[in-house]
Amino acid sequence: MRARVTVYPRREILDPQGKAIHQALERIGFAGVRDVRAGKSFEIELDGGDAAAAERLLAEMSEKLLVNPVVEDYTVELLPGEPS
Amino acid sequence: MRARVTVYPRREILDPQGKAIHQALERIGFAGVRDVRAGKSFEIELDGGDAAAAERLLAEMSEKLLVNPVVEDYTVELLPGEPS
Repeated sequence: MRARVTVYPRREILDPQGKAIHQALERIGFAGVRDVRAGKSFEIELDGGDAAAAERLLAEMSEKLLVNPVVEDYTVELLPGEPS
Repeated sequence: MRARVTVYPRREILDPQGKAIHQALERIGFAGVRDVRAGKSFEIELDGGDAAAAERLLAEMSEKLLVNPVVEDYTVELLPGEPS
């Protein structure tokens, strides 16, 4: 089972990295960018094929290790197929 | 148009951050983790609704600013709906 945990700063928290990238994109000529948020992505491969069990485990990993819930939000997605 | 660019170390490049997270998960009691890769995620909101144009623009942004193609791979996904 392959999954991805995506972690972003909470909407109400400043995202200075996203803001810096937004400004840099404009500086090098990209117009029409409304917003950039910068976060982290973890691709995790687990033994076993039970989707519900994997989602529970990944939520637990996120809350214990991957995410700081005071300032970050996360989403868990199960990915199809084998590792690229 | 909302999109996500996900950036990971290339498969043939060592991923010390992913490895450290893998070891930390095992240390705190998570068994059955086969592999962890640690990467970056950028959520970008663009003006306009043309998917093909957005994908071209995001690939260009990735190659010019977001990604170091020597050591990183990236994927672009268009996201449905409005910002969360």
